[in-house]
Amino acid sequence: MITEAQNKSTEAQSQERLLQRGLSLSKESFLAEVEARLRKALEGGFSAPMQEASVLLEAARHLCLEGGGKRVRPRLVGMFGEALGAPEEALADIAVAGELIHAASLLHDDVVDEGTLRRGRPTARSLWDNKVSVLSGDMVLSLAFLQVKRYPPMITERAVELVASMSRAAMMEIVACGRPEMSIEAWWGIAMGKTGALFGWCGEAVALLMNQTDAIANLRDCGLRLGVAFQMADDLKDLRGDDPKDRFADIRNRNPSFCLLTASERSPAFRQALSLAWSKERLEEPQIQQLGESVLALGIAEHTYQALCREVDLAMAALGPYLYAPGGRDIAAWGEWLCKGLRQA
Amino acid sequence: MITEAQNKSTEAQSQERLLQRGLSLSKESFLAEVEARLRKALEGGFSAPMQEASVLLEAARHLCLEGGGKRVRPRLVGMFGEALGAPEEALADIAVAGELIHAASLLHDDVVDEGTLRRGRPTARSLWDNKVSVLSGDMVLSLAFLQVKRYPPMITERAVELVASMSRAAMMEIVACGRPEMSIEAWWGIAMGKTGALFGWCGEAVALLMNQTDAIANLRDCGLRLGVAFQMADDLKDLRGDDPKDRFADIRNRNPSFCLLTASERSPAFRQALSLAWSKERLEEPQIQQLGESVLALGIAEHTYQALCREVDLAMAALGPYLYAPGGRDIAAWGEWLCKGLRQA
Repeated sequence: MITEAQNKSTEAQSQERLLQRGLSLSKESFLAEVEARLRKALEGGFSAPMQEASVLLEAARHLCLEGGGKRVRPRLVGMFGEALGAPEEALADIAVAGELIHAASLLHDDVVDEGTLRRGRPTARSLWDNKVSVLSGDMVLSLAFLQVKRYPPMITERAVELVASMSRAAMMEIVACGRPEMSIEAWWGIAMGKTGALFGWCGEAVALLMNQTDAIANLRDCGLRLGVAFQMADDLKDLRGDDPKDRFADIRNRNPSFCLLTASERSPAFRQALSLAWSKERLEEPQIQQLGESVLALGIAEHTYQALCREVDLAMAALGPYLYAPGGRDIAAWGEWLCKGLRQA
Repeated sequence: MITEAQNKSTEAQSQERLLQRGLSLSKESFLAEVEARLRKALEGGFSAPMQEASVLLEAARHLCLEGGGKRVRPRLVGMFGEALGAPEEALADIAVAGELIHAASLLHDDVVDEGTLRRGRPTARSLWDNKVSVLSGDMVLSLAFLQVKRYPPMITERAVELVASMSRAAMMEIVACGRPEMSIEAWWGIAMGKTGALFGWCGEAVALLMNQTDAIANLRDCGLRLGVAFQMADDLKDLRGDDPKDRFADIRNRNPSFCLLTASERSPAFRQALSLAWSKERLEEPQIQQLGESVLALGIAEHTYQALCREVDLAMAALGPYLYAPGGRDIAAWGEWLCKGLRQA
């Protein structure tokens, strides 16, 4: 049996290798091109007399360029694009738009969550304030739409619907906070609206770009399911303690994660204990640990892992014939990595 | 000389008459149709399991349907549309989009300004919270774009650029707060970005709808200037005390209005006095009144009135040949009313 540290390092290497592979297949230059266009979209500032409003772009750069984002959405666009043989230039614009929509949602989420840290760095709202974060989000969203204005209008239209879906899901997430009695169905709604819808848009936009209407459902549904899997992976990592310093953060932050809801569904006793804990003003650390251990004892990690793999399988099935195209194989490899990385050591 | 009360009542009658006239010319049913479509866009809620996110639509209805908005933007769209002979159905959609973009900006502005009241009613953020106001604004903006998705894509593209411009102007407004040394040029930038750009879009969208590219600049520039005039009128009303309970609110709220900046430019002594007052944590009421009286003593009310009329004249000139079309005459009448209503009694 390999140690956790070894496992992690293997995992990191495997990720690196697969991402490299994804890169080389969709031409190595692709992510660099996306990065250059992101920089260009957010560069500089406004001229006099509006110069001082340039802080909106500064805040966006802070989040989007200096924040160490993994560029999951651009990578997905690259792979979807490869599957349909899309031209790299237009693909880079779609990738930039996807990343900017993501950034805009984070700028607003930080206001909504009153977050002070993101990816280990101070949020825009804590470096500046809520005002800057709200308005910077609005501006970044506009820049996202403008990035794809040259392409079929349906791409923008679907992006607009995506934003409505993301707002709705963000609101549901707030409502769900502290409620272990939330239905698993509502969890799915949130995961699809928040992460899945944008992953799905990445696929749909590529199909619309290529005017391949028969591919829309394949790529969109693949993205949707991958987004849900991605969210499940997040929940599972918290339960497994991949970040040991902040293990069981979902319990601490009263976030009814997939794992917690499944545990609640399986065990009325756990549900009662979680309800009681969340009804209190303060959560004590030993109680958090105890609740977390109960979830593990119920076998929820394995259950979540299985659900995640199933979701990845369905994502691949959704790809249909495109699974066998070059980019499709990369998506499959990425999905496989997502599962493998989370297999219990 | 007529009393202030008489003057007000005449003003109200004159407004009523002109709006009626505008209405009858662009068919009486137009505003009712806009209202019905606004209701439809914001009606109902989401189905299970996302039902509880319906608060986003509730908040939007609270602001947009129950808030007693004057529907200035839909009226403008109606008049611009009349000038180009646009079909009422499509025009109503553009009017709804304009009103929704306005509503979305107010929902975000309330968060940005930490406002508790708007049009004498509690803001969405005080009835619910900042989160609801931010996410409702995002959703309402999406609904605005969706309202015009059937029309030439350039209409959406220009709306997206408009949102960027409005965010920039809102940021500049924050930066300008408490700064009497701001340039008049910056004031123009804010007024154009905040109010003018949306009024201008109302014109531009109608021209794009009718595919009358030669009319774009006419209608857009007319709207831009009317928006600036509208902002000047606001500043002048505050100086004249049209709302006696809250006279000199711009001084109280450290808002460098057109009147205050003009006074600062004319009189270094006033500028110094305002700077000193705004540098203090607390502003005392007698000091506010004294500063306000100084602005009046400098003849700023008359100056602002002249500037406003000039702006309206330029707006009419911008209309070019469309000034003589039916809707164009209504716009001219509306501009004339804006001036007349503010003429010193």
